Amino acid sequence: MHFLSTENWSQEDLQAILEQADQLKQQPMNDSLKGKSIAMLFLNPSMRTRTSFQLGMQQMGGIAIVLQPGKDAWGIEFNPNVIMDGEAEEHIIEVAGVLSRYCDLIALRAFPSFTDWSVDREDKLINALAQHATVPVINMETIVHPCQELALMQTMQEKMGELKNKKFVLTWAYHPKPLNTAVANSAALITTKFGMDVTLLCPDEHYLLDSHYMSKAQEFAKTYGGKFTVTHDINAAYKDADFIYAKSWGSLDFYQDPQKDQAHRKQYQHFTVNQEKMALTNNAYFSHCLPLRRNIQATDAVMDADYCVVLDEAENRLHAQKALMLKLLNK
Amino acid sequence: MHFLSTENWSQEDLQAILEQADQLKQQPMNDSLKGKSIAMLFLNPSMRTRTSFQLGMQQMGGIAIVLQPGKDAWGIEFNPNVIMDGEAEEHIIEVAGVLSRYCDLIALRAFPSFTDWSVDREDKLINALAQHATVPVINMETIVHPCQELALMQTMQEKMGELKNKKFVLTWAYHPKPLNTAVANSAALITTKFGMDVTLLCPDEHYLLDSHYMSKAQEFAKTYGGKFTVTHDINAAYKDADFIYAKSWGSLDFYQDPQKDQAHRKQYQHFTVNQEKMALTNNAYFSHCLPLRRNIQATDAVMDADYCVVLDEAENRLHAQKALMLKLLNK
Amino acid sequence: MHFLSTENWSQEDLQAILEQADQLKQQPMNDSLKGKSIAMLFLNPSMRTRTSFQLGMQQMGGIAIVLQPGKDAWGIEFNPNVIMDGEAEEHIIEVAGVLSRYCDLIALRAFPSFTDWSVDREDKLINALAQHATVPVINMETIVHPCQELALMQTMQEKMGELKNKKFVLTWAYHPKPLNTAVANSAALITTKFGMDVTLLCPDEHYLLDSHYMSKAQEFAKTYGGKFTVTHDINAAYKDADFIYAKSWGSLDFYQDPQKDQAHRKQYQHFTVNQEKMALTNNAYFSHCLPLRRNIQATDAVMDADYCVVLDEAENRLHAQKALMLKLLNK
Repeated sequence: MHFLSTENWSQEDLQAILEQADQLKQQPMNDSLKGKSIAMLFLNPSMRTRTSFQLGMQQMGGIAIVLQPGKDAWGIEFNPNVIMDGEAEEHIIEVAGVLSRYCDLIALRAFPSFTDWSVDREDKLINALAQHATVPVINMETIVHPCQELALMQTMQEKMGELKNKKFVLTWAYHPKPLNTAVANSAALITTKFGMDVTLLCPDEHYLLDSHYMSKAQEFAKTYGGKFTVTHDINAAYKDADFIYAKSWGSLDFYQDPQKDQAHRKQYQHFTVNQEKMALTNNAYFSHCLPLRRNIQATDAVMDADYCVVLDEAENRLHAQKALMLKLLNK
Repeated sequence: MHFLSTENWSQEDLQAILEQADQLKQQPMNDSLKGKSIAMLFLNPSMRTRTSFQLGMQQMGGIAIVLQPGKDAWGIEFNPNVIMDGEAEEHIIEVAGVLSRYCDLIALRAFPSFTDWSVDREDKLINALAQHATVPVINMETIVHPCQELALMQTMQEKMGELKNKKFVLTWAYHPKPLNTAVANSAALITTKFGMDVTLLCPDEHYLLDSHYMSKAQEFAKTYGGKFTVTHDINAAYKDADFIYAKSWGSLDFYQDPQKDQAHRKQYQHFTVNQEKMALTNNAYFSHCLPLRRNIQATDAVMDADYCVVLDEAENRLHAQKALMLKLLNK
Repeated sequence: MHFLSTENWSQEDLQAILEQADQLKQQPMNDSLKGKSIAMLFLNPSMRTRTSFQLGMQQMGGIAIVLQPGKDAWGIEFNPNVIMDGEAEEHIIEVAGVLSRYCDLIALRAFPSFTDWSVDREDKLINALAQHATVPVINMETIVHPCQELALMQTMQEKMGELKNKKFVLTWAYHPKPLNTAVANSAALITTKFGMDVTLLCPDEHYLLDSHYMSKAQEFAKTYGGKFTVTHDINAAYKDADFIYAKSWGSLDFYQDPQKDQAHRKQYQHFTVNQEKMALTNNAYFSHCLPLRRNIQATDAVMDADYCVVLDEAENRLHAQKALMLKLLNK
């Protein structure tokens, strides 16, 4: 059993993880994973993910190993049947095989390459790892970020209780560079799976999410009794919202041309979360996965407000991932 | 309670830490910090600091997390109320907030930028971290290096017993590059606070320390019954010294122009610690915080002599920092 | 007692480590090294070595510290009596001294510089570390790779039982870049010490190993009742082989001129391990130390075959190094 995306996980199984996470928040230390270990492969930087997994594993008696292939470890080839005459010194088949012999869990962070979305959308790296690993694999962010989803849901349940038909606004936010769509994809998947009324707010059609995630969100909304709508109207989106979730992401239309995206998005610098917009809501909470650029994606006033729960969500990464590891190791 | 500088710590509290450190040196293993954790942020390289904190925390049952913002973690903005359109991806407010949720202690190494001393002397990074953290913050070297101070004092007390009115010489040493003044500032603060007769030896007025540390050293000398004098006369300084402490540092006068400093200091290559100078002392011990360039700052003969206690001081980093962590966590 | 090379270790002592390794493979967790620690210095990348040592130490209750001098720690000078006016900020004398105060074991990975083999063959870095350390030093690959040897022997004994006079073929393999000879040197040393009939297969006389390892292999073959022969004939080498061990290495003749080596070796791209060659053997096993470039050094078909034991060998790194640490610490 891998944790590559929540897409194929049932609401019930996810809810069980969230409840376990709540218990671990009350009682953080145990010896459930004594003798167990996790290997964490980071192809990109990390602060929260790295700290919370390292800490979480050790708080349950286990061992966490951090590796940075291409920096402190060898570069990895992820494509099958390749003549490896490039930069990579070893194949994911061996990396997965060796780490499966050493460790009980393998986690990978591998952001998309931002060269060709038709390739990146297949999420080949984590899938290759999962295919060749003989232990559970955890996605620490690729083109989705399912661990962030767990933390978001735990936070919303803490703050708002039952989430069904609560209005959740996923708003695009300005950032000088085009970023990964992973957290946006993930937020759309998980909130619809929990029956929320979800509004995706983005400045224009260039900032829609990949059709796969859009249609999955539609499907989940239908199945779980919520809604999934798209708007470019800021006021309409914020109105009566219960939860504002901001994230900046790059346009898939300009994916191979980040400068075009940067030129295009300049007109959307007002897509920042500020107090005026928050005043339109139903006393909504505000959150963001972090890292966040203050006074770009959200103002200081919003970040410092009582309704801002970014630290709660970040903290819940720890608890939710501990519950996830227990689940994957049948503890 | 933070440990940003010893400046506002009483001699009594510091002495209590040193005594605890001595006990931990005898009995290094315990479970006092089981379930506790420290997050260590390194903006600069480290060998002793990193190893001794990681080891010390784990020897007391706790967990140590090492992060390198800008390398393996996201770059950090330290200034308040900034529109974050530069390189930094997140603000110290969130970094401090998140790490305070995860860990029981946060430690930071952040050398000055060597561009503008009038800015660097305010030590904004560690102060911003301390302001926003809700757990104790430890300075692992900024413009002072208080952990090194503890190790130095523990070493001197081991070797010389009561330190009051012992002659301590802090000598500038040649090095091809202008370095941080932190250890020099720290040595001046702590030795005067323990009532030693302190001589600051530097080649000319360009290598005086910042006025804040000079006047604090004067004030402590007065309060605690010692002396603080400055000289450029090598023979006078070494004469009758009980302890020679070498360190190279950059001139604050040439702070924005390292090449000017390098050109100016070339005439001072004789500011190396050698056996001839050590022969002028009262059988003094010699130490240095390390790293040290052999045959530049001190000769092989000095480094290999019985009176050289650099390894003792380095070892005491471990014991003193363990005592410090216990103190900050009220254990 | 250091573990710099197996050269001066007796077959009996090595066999005892291998038997301990087998036991640890059955029963991986224990508290034998509670309170002990290892400092690991990596001057080059690592995946298996780093993971297996970190894991192994912690699985026995100890603490593992990873340092990367020149990256996250200070650059190190290894030559004695040098005026340190270059890049290195500290000397191996102090590094060895300090880490000996902190830790119970010190391990070093330091690949040769590929500038002058007459210098590199003296293996000065690890020898300087061993000279100045007061705790056991472990070689994590310099110009030999003795930890890999242990894993290889454990794997062969598991698969083939008694190894005396079994035919072991160490074959040079194509790789676009000239690599370290360490694993080849090591394989020649250890297999002859266990009385195997060893064939070194390389494309021409430019790819012979250093005379020291060639003559040691001859000497061990004589002492322990095996053989050590060199051939450039692929078919003759593979015929009746019991174990094929592939490794690519750079020519010592072209050591200062990697482009010359690359030009020369282009004609030897058929030095890949494939199924046709494996069919010539006595149902031989195949292994490699990893990392391996698929379809360069060995084909996918070989790597995915049942007779391929690369993962077993990689796994045994963990068990063998745990046994080694216990031996060095007299546990």
